[in-house]
Amino acid sequence: MSGTSDGPITEIVHVAGAHVGPLLARVEQRLLEIASDNGPVLSEHATGTITAGGKRLRPLLVVLAAGGADGDGVIRGAVAVELVHAATLVHDDVLDAAALRRGRPTVVASGGRELAVATGDLLFSRAFTELLPSGPDAVRALSEAGSALAEGELMQRADAFDAAVSVDRYLRRCELKTACLFVAACRLGSIEAGDGKALDPFARDIGTAFQILDDVLDVSGPAEQTGKHRGTDLLDGTVTLPFILARESDPALGAPPGMTPAEAEAVCDRIAATGALDTARARALDLVVQAKDSLPPGLPPAQRRALDLVADSVVARYA
Amino acid sequence: MSGTSDGPITEIVHVAGAHVGPLLARVEQRLLEIASDNGPVLSEHATGTITAGGKRLRPLLVVLAAGGADGDGVIRGAVAVELVHAATLVHDDVLDAAALRRGRPTVVASGGRELAVATGDLLFSRAFTELLPSGPDAVRALSEAGSALAEGELMQRADAFDAAVSVDRYLRRCELKTACLFVAACRLGSIEAGDGKALDPFARDIGTAFQILDDVLDVSGPAEQTGKHRGTDLLDGTVTLPFILARESDPALGAPPGMTPAEAEAVCDRIAATGALDTARARALDLVVQAKDSLPPGLPPAQRRALDLVADSVVARYA
Repeated sequence: MSGTSDGPITEIVHVAGAHVGPLLARVEQRLLEIASDNGPVLSEHATGTITAGGKRLRPLLVVLAAGGADGDGVIRGAVAVELVHAATLVHDDVLDAAALRRGRPTVVASGGRELAVATGDLLFSRAFTELLPSGPDAVRALSEAGSALAEGELMQRADAFDAAVSVDRYLRRCELKTACLFVAACRLGSIEAGDGKALDPFARDIGTAFQILDDVLDVSGPAEQTGKHRGTDLLDGTVTLPFILARESDPALGAPPGMTPAEAEAVCDRIAATGALDTARARALDLVVQAKDSLPPGLPPAQRRALDLVADSVVARYA
Repeated sequence: MSGTSDGPITEIVHVAGAHVGPLLARVEQRLLEIASDNGPVLSEHATGTITAGGKRLRPLLVVLAAGGADGDGVIRGAVAVELVHAATLVHDDVLDAAALRRGRPTVVASGGRELAVATGDLLFSRAFTELLPSGPDAVRALSEAGSALAEGELMQRADAFDAAVSVDRYLRRCELKTACLFVAACRLGSIEAGDGKALDPFARDIGTAFQILDDVLDVSGPAEQTGKHRGTDLLDGTVTLPFILARESDPALGAPPGMTPAEAEAVCDRIAATGALDTARARALDLVVQAKDSLPPGLPPAQRRALDLVADSVVARYA
């Protein structure tokens, strides 16, 4: 689910310093421990979600934001932020499972949904338990991110199928749904480095760029790259930046409920025809530039270079 | 959702001391504040769940366990435990909504489910934010309870439609699903009183009794009292103590998936015919007696009397 491919990650770890590789290995180790210690009921679902991986972009941010710090607090922060991310993925599964269930109202499917809700809750609780020794500032960073994630989801629901959503409102949703957890990741690292909130603007901007590019990809496809059909956001009623921009030059564009997948793909083509995808991509690239510019001047060169590369990696997957 | 009617609560507040009424009023005030401050998207769902009430049994436990303490920490603990309880109710709604949806796979219904997942997550996050100033012991008590609640749900799923579930395993599930949050409530109060975990056994026993009696009610009905049909647990595949006990004398009793509501009611009748409901009720009453006996000898008389009444109130709703 992260925005990196193996190449960039290897380079980032190389650039950031010799302590980063071992730190990430310890994070992985700890995630495995937690995945294999799921109390009286070992949920394959929880274990699978944690160990399935992804590129660990958020733990990487914690480690990089921590600068040279390499204590247990860094590990705890990286693990906690990944557990919260995993919890949101599992709760998203509740909805995916539901979609798959259409026309199949079976008890087994119902069990799957209950399982997903409970598993997400468990991962979320475990994240807080993990972070407790790091102190109230760390726990606050995580709980604020948790609230923001949920508020972002609620906002998305409130705006569903509303073709008139503004760019500002869309960007606020990106911040809540995605960027806030990037901010928490950087804060959890910065807390260990004693740096406070110096990386907040960086994290917010790359997180927002990440979400914009994700939304572009949902319109542009191809499906082989995203693992899903084009236009799934439209089918869900999620109005994103490409649609909002396209509607400026094609005001008749609508996002009504009840579209078929074929109709949604047709809307994707119509969005692409307006040039909105390029405009949205450019907006994301601007945010990445802005993110890099916002890095504090006093940052050690290796740390700055590594964070620059992370920002670039958010873009790279769409190159 | 609590196990008390207005009468017992009034008596408990009277017995516990003059500070308790105002404390509970402050808890209610704070819950209302949180309900009306739901960030950029005010969710009627969140507000409704918090303000709909219930009898606030868990906040009452926090306040009573705190003894004479009446500082902000008591309020925070009571509010946090009620928010977690509300989060679990909302996540249960995900499943209820699903049941109502059968044969109605509409986008609106899907929006409802997403809304419920996100709202529950939001309430859960808010609970932790609320509790932060109370320190790591308090946050730990809540995060452990959060994990236990989720593990209990997972255990219930794992055991679904398994007619051979043991009494021990059932009791462990009750502890995770229900009693652990009672324990957290008492701990959050005790932390403010400087008492540690002295009320753990009391809380665990009344929590377990509460769940057993809830499960008895699902079999015994009447529906007017519970607001749902008899046998909903059977339809969900949730094997409870009355069924387990009935099966000892009626080994052919099964809990297969796919029962109709009428078939589930017939199984309820068959359970009742074995006398298992009385045996289960007796077991709950024993736990209540045991809970009262476990109260520390040094407890101030007013606090003891109030806790005794809480224990009795768990039973009273089934009288």
